[in-house]
Amino acid sequence: MAELSRRRLLGAGALVAGSAGAAAVVGPRLVSGAAAVGDPAVEPFYGPHQGGIATVPQGYATLMAFDLRPDHRTAASLRSIMKLWTADAARLTQGLPAIADTEPELATSPARLTVTVGYGPTLFDALRMTGARPATLRELPAFSVDRLEPRWGGAHLLVQLCADSPLPISHAARVLTKNVRSMATVRWIQRGFREPMRPEEPGGSMRNLMGQVDGTVNLAESQFDRFVWDGGEDQPWFAGGTIMVVRRIRAELDTWDQLGRDTKELVVGRTLDSGAPLTGQRESDEPDFDAHVGGIPVIPPNSHIARARHHVDSEQFLRRPYNYDDPPPAGQISDSGLLFLAFQRDPATQFVPVQQRISDGDALNEWVTPVGSATFAMLPGVRDGEYLGQPFLDAV
Amino acid sequence: MAELSRRRLLGAGALVAGSAGAAAVVGPRLVSGAAAVGDPAVEPFYGPHQGGIATVPQGYATLMAFDLRPDHRTAASLRSIMKLWTADAARLTQGLPAIADTEPELATSPARLTVTVGYGPTLFDALRMTGARPATLRELPAFSVDRLEPRWGGAHLLVQLCADSPLPISHAARVLTKNVRSMATVRWIQRGFREPMRPEEPGGSMRNLMGQVDGTVNLAESQFDRFVWDGGEDQPWFAGGTIMVVRRIRAELDTWDQLGRDTKELVVGRTLDSGAPLTGQRESDEPDFDAHVGGIPVIPPNSHIARARHHVDSEQFLRRPYNYDDPPPAGQISDSGLLFLAFQRDPATQFVPVQQRISDGDALNEWVTPVGSATFAMLPGVRDGEYLGQPFLDAV
Ligand code: HEM
Ligand code: HEM
Repeated sequence: MAELSRRRLLGAGALVAGSAGAAAVVGPRLVSGAAAVGDPAVEPFYGPHQGGIATVPQGYATLMAFDLRPDHRTAASLRSIMKLWTADAARLTQGLPAIADTEPELATSPARLTVTVGYGPTLFDALRMTGARPATLRELPAFSVDRLEPRWGGAHLLVQLCADSPLPISHAARVLTKNVRSMATVRWIQRGFREPMRPEEPGGSMRNLMGQVDGTVNLAESQFDRFVWDGGEDQPWFAGGTIMVVRRIRAELDTWDQLGRDTKELVVGRTLDSGAPLTGQRESDEPDFDAHVGGIPVIPPNSHIARARHHVDSEQFLRRPYNYDDPPPAGQISDSGLLFLAFQRDPATQFVPVQQRISDGDALNEWVTPVGSATFAMLPGVRDGEYLGQPFLDAV
Repeated sequence: MAELSRRRLLGAGALVAGSAGAAAVVGPRLVSGAAAVGDPAVEPFYGPHQGGIATVPQGYATLMAFDLRPDHRTAASLRSIMKLWTADAARLTQGLPAIADTEPELATSPARLTVTVGYGPTLFDALRMTGARPATLRELPAFSVDRLEPRWGGAHLLVQLCADSPLPISHAARVLTKNVRSMATVRWIQRGFREPMRPEEPGGSMRNLMGQVDGTVNLAESQFDRFVWDGGEDQPWFAGGTIMVVRRIRAELDTWDQLGRDTKELVVGRTLDSGAPLTGQRESDEPDFDAHVGGIPVIPPNSHIARARHHVDSEQFLRRPYNYDDPPPAGQISDSGLLFLAFQRDPATQFVPVQQRISDGDALNEWVTPVGSATFAMLPGVRDGEYLGQPFLDAV
């Protein structure tokens, strides 16, 4: 198989992030001790693509979905929002206070903050600009496994905030929301966290709250142009963007925890301790889907990795999931699962066939339930002096 | 003044925590790189006091309030719960899976996890054991500033989970809740985070979401016996315990952010950038409440530090606050503030006079609103072989 695990490819970036020397290690933020004041951990803002997609996954993510207020469903209002968010993001990601920041001190430690902005399919309808919508941006079809709750559905705008500390995320969330509150309202907020399994491999696998090693097989950076970044074929303004799929998938831990370890491992096709395929020893070993013992496949054909693995080369996409763990509803003891975030040029040919195969017969379905679903066209990156979405707004 | 800032006193502990060498610094957990596998960051479980009180504040806190189910309001059920929680906490805090842990791999990186258990005033009523209630454990009186929401009120039991990563907290929360679900229900969960302002001073001040330097003046460790740890005078079983006050205090950021910096600084009596008193240069400088310029006091008498400072020596307590930042209700753009956690022998003589003085005329009141209030008798620590609350249950 051609994939390399993501951590191998992103290892170089990780080394840079960790290279500032010995570090102070108490408190949520990940600060390089000696260098912390003069050299905060920053991710670039300007470039052909927005940050927060190819970026080595940060420890925390907050997704904020917004709708334009009825009297602001215009190109002019969208342009104002984009200019404000561009100015905010360009500064906050670099550890600088936003313009007229009322809590400037909360901006000084961005902890690799990224701000990633996208448009939902309904935005193009609301603006009556359906002609400018990328053909790849559509709501997902319904899947039989779905138990979608309307409160986690699509929206006009999405902002993904990621950082290695919740503090700069809280600050950025407030600044961005405040600056556009007269034009847009918050529809929902979803929060997640992840922790690399091996601290020396920050882009590597994490453990999800089902206890599984999650993130082993993923796109290599060299595959991003083919599978992630839009080439502008349909909508030239969208070149360098990507389509994001946001699936909120609840883990049914009460029943999951009734399974024995062997069953849990058969359900996924990998071991719980190392994440190795059932046919291998190490996490990085290639699974052998043809291996049989006593006539029985070692990796069950309905295991999650057998169903989720691409059957044709084109069915690949970038996974960048976060755990969520929210206060449980009355009578429950937990409400947790995955914010399953996938990035691809075209969900219809990449995400959907995999989700369809999962929906049709993945053993894992009994213990996970999609409760939210939304798609967004994540904008191309910007150059200094431009604003997010400018090629779109200039075109319409 | 006799207080020393907490970070100076806890500096030694911090050095121990940081002494494992150079650290990997990406991802939410704070792991000492080389030593991470063999020597995870652990806080002691056994001892005269529970962890999570004098412990250098970890980055994350989750408070879980429970009520005994109606058919389990008995000493026998409470004993079962205490035995289960003691066994869980003794293992999970040390990086060991709980007994029959269904996700044992989530236990291996405790990230300084502490589990701190307490009893609410209503527990003693529910058990019909009011004679064994510490006289110091009472609901707080009403304050005129209060806008309390019943959903954040008192409960039979409290568990405070703190760690430098959300992952071990999520795992511990689920294990502890699952093991007692037949006997107790979750009443509420509150979550917070904090980040030391200076990574080299992990027990030092943090920034709260109003942008203030928070945590400057606090108890010295040498003062804990006098101000924090119960001596067992009233209830011998309670010796080594302490009373915890949980105040959920919403920050009114929309109006706070309309103030200029000068006003914000006058409201608190300290500067926003360094946290120095308005009469000093450095955060650690002693405020001079008698200083006047042109006949006007430099630190306003209704500033927060003037009101909150103890007027008599006995009014001191340990503050261990966390920021909270929850998804906002419809129409709002944020819902954040402080989980104000205070520990003392007797709130009536320590916390209440200060809260009363604040309530009567603190300039800060206009921008903060207490929306939750509860008190708990946090149990004494345990020795190996004992269980939490055993001296109480043996006595009744
Ligand atoms: C809560 C729900 C889910 C859980 C707990 C979960 C967990 C896992 C785990 C443990 C692995 C193996 C390790 C790895 O390669 O990362 C995996 C692999 C994978 N998952 Fe999921 N997953 C979930 C939902 C989904 C969904 C909805 C999709 C896409 C529609 C998906 C697509 C994939 C893919 C493409 C792989 C790699 C398969 C391979 O080529 O080996 N997963 N997942
Ligand atoms: C959201 C509400 C609150 C905020 C934002 C807040 C913020 C602050 C800040 C910025 C300081 C100065 C720095 C420091 O010494 O930590 C401070 C000091 C202090 N606060 Fe608060 N506080 C709040 C509520 C309370 C409450 C409810 C109490 C007790 C009833 C309290 C008691 C204290 C004490 C004792 C000090 C130290 C005063 C001194 O001796 O200088 N605070 N607070």
